[in-house]
Amino acid sequence: MTNLRIPGPTPCPDEVLKAMGRQMINHRGPEFARSLDDVTNKLKQLFQTRNDVFMLTGSGTGGLEAAVVNVLSPGDKVLSVSIGVFGERFAAIAKQFGADVIPLNFEWGKAAKVDEIRQALKDNPQVKAVLVTHNETSTGVTNDLSAISSVVKEYGKLLVVDAISSLGSIELPVDEWQCDVTVTGSQKGWMVPPGLIMVAVSEAAWEANAEAKMPRFYWDFAKAKSYLEKGQTPWTPAISVIFALEVALDMLLKEGISSIVARHAHIADKARSGIKALGLELFAEDGYASNTVTSVVAPERLNVKEMLRILREEHDIVLGGGQQSMSGKIFRIGHLGWVTDKDIDDVLHAFKVVLPQAGFGG
Amino acid sequence: MTNLRIPGPTPCPDEVLKAMGRQMINHRGPEFARSLDDVTNKLKQLFQTRNDVFMLTGSGTGGLEAAVVNVLSPGDKVLSVSIGVFGERFAAIAKQFGADVIPLNFEWGKAAKVDEIRQALKDNPQVKAVLVTHNETSTGVTNDLSAISSVVKEYGKLLVVDAISSLGSIELPVDEWQCDVTVTGSQKGWMVPPGLIMVAVSEAAWEANAEAKMPRFYWDFAKAKSYLEKGQTPWTPAISVIFALEVALDMLLKEGISSIVARHAHIADKARSGIKALGLELFAEDGYASNTVTSVVAPERLNVKEMLRILREEHDIVLGGGQQSMSGKIFRIGHLGWVTDKDIDDVLHAFKVVLPQAGFGG
Repeated sequence: MTNLRIPGPTPCPDEVLKAMGRQMINHRGPEFARSLDDVTNKLKQLFQTRNDVFMLTGSGTGGLEAAVVNVLSPGDKVLSVSIGVFGERFAAIAKQFGADVIPLNFEWGKAAKVDEIRQALKDNPQVKAVLVTHNETSTGVTNDLSAISSVVKEYGKLLVVDAISSLGSIELPVDEWQCDVTVTGSQKGWMVPPGLIMVAVSEAAWEANAEAKMPRFYWDFAKAKSYLEKGQTPWTPAISVIFALEVALDMLLKEGISSIVARHAHIADKARSGIKALGLELFAEDGYASNTVTSVVAPERLNVKEMLRILREEHDIVLGGGQQSMSGKIFRIGHLGWVTDKDIDDVLHAFKVVLPQAGFGG
Repeated sequence: MTNLRIPGPTPCPDEVLKAMGRQMINHRGPEFARSLDDVTNKLKQLFQTRNDVFMLTGSGTGGLEAAVVNVLSPGDKVLSVSIGVFGERFAAIAKQFGADVIPLNFEWGKAAKVDEIRQALKDNPQVKAVLVTHNETSTGVTNDLSAISSVVKEYGKLLVVDAISSLGSIELPVDEWQCDVTVTGSQKGWMVPPGLIMVAVSEAAWEANAEAKMPRFYWDFAKAKSYLEKGQTPWTPAISVIFALEVALDMLLKEGISSIVARHAHIADKARSGIKALGLELFAEDGYASNTVTSVVAPERLNVKEMLRILREEHDIVLGGGQQSMSGKIFRIGHLGWVTDKDIDDVLHAFKVVLPQAGFGG
């Protein structure tokens, strides 16, 4: 099997893939209602929330769009905290739908500075919501969401969180950290194929929703809520992915949240130590390196594209390159969801052979 | 196996389900690029189009939203031709995103009258686009899209088509009938689980797209086009459903468009004759009954809810009830995609037992 080490889609366990192959059922019948209820309740446990949780059919970016259009009106001021590609995307979505976006961009590779967020909120009292990426997949950096939340709540703002590549892998107690809208996607630590967005919506987010005037139909949380009450989704859901998620959630709950978080921390630590031992440099700021994806600075002599090709074609290992301006400058090793020590060992072992072939060391 | 006779999701052949269970791959790698290219080319054959075809991750309603926001600006006048629930939904989406919707609603159970469309276009010269449902799933009626297209093009308007439950089952040559945006969904005649929208975009639709000011990000056709050129989708796609679609498209192309259309016509005819032979009345106007779903008038004494329950629990047959105002007044038999003569025979046979149990005849 390919050692698929990108930050999603992640490899899926056999039981999960088997569930993907289940025959279709009526999405408006009692059997589906039971699955929907079961999955929703299990998601609430792993989100550590008592708020509403919904599944929407789409991919992560759709979840970010849903988060924006459900709580904001055109003209609303929002503070967008960005540390990479996905932070910029969040801001671009809000702008596209008419929000007055105040960008607070930090250097790629660094985490957001809480003091600067505080200052921005102080300087902009009319800000209604703060958009923040918990784990920035493009740079391999995890923000200190707990500290950010404290500041955002100190100023009484809505906290809208892109938790796509963190929730289910990295500690994120949604209620304790007072996240108002929290978005994740099935193809990350959940060990399930892409196609499903999972989102938690707080009481404060519902109040914002009642006033929010950005146009929405497909992504409308209110419709999702009213249908969930009768055991349905407003539109035909990605049934297979829900079947698969049901299986994966059982595995995750059996393992337990603290074990899941510890497992990701352990495997990330292994990846980081191994990378350093190879004489390579980590891209992420010390203390903020992500436990789901490790970003590595490409040494000047290394041909990243060639390295990725050799790894893929000769070692059946697939890594991520750098996105946008990071192309050729970093590469990324995904280690979220279904990943073992051996998977990481195999990557590190292959590097010893491939790095010299692609121009670095040897 | 359950005889799942709703108008989608439809049962999937074993080979298709097997493909759903394939392990994940990198959606930005060469293997996925080959699949995307292959599936796109095969879709073009079955759409009978030389225009651009994209896959978007979501369910049908998302596809309708995508169609609207990609070609219209707030304030644009659109003529919405509605003959049921899905026609009304199309209009509601356009309205939600700020279009000035001129509703042209026909009695449920009837097809749209082409003369009235002509008159409406004559009366409203500023109309930019016409929204029309090809096959109205809620009433089991198929509009005469070829004739509607002629009128729409006579007046030089954009033709935006909900072909969700028609394309791949009922004749719809996209280019010949000059459809500008044509939307379908994987869980219909395509014999694939839900999660994927397929959409064709004409040259005229691209011209409208360049001017269209409705807010869009996730559904943006221009992003889909630019990513497709490099063998990718803008956002992580429902990879499993694409794998499954690849298998299903091979089966469909092997069968051939005319055979697929004839098969659906034959099976629908069988359903309609059988229903009439039981002393029941068809809901759809003569000559416009759908070849993908048959709607049946519930006789006064029949308890539809009870009938559906007995069919489900004692015969493992799942039919659709009536939606919204049709609840309790009609019921619906889906016969699109992977369906055999025996499946319909089994339904008709079960009716003989169940109808008297639920209050009708016997």
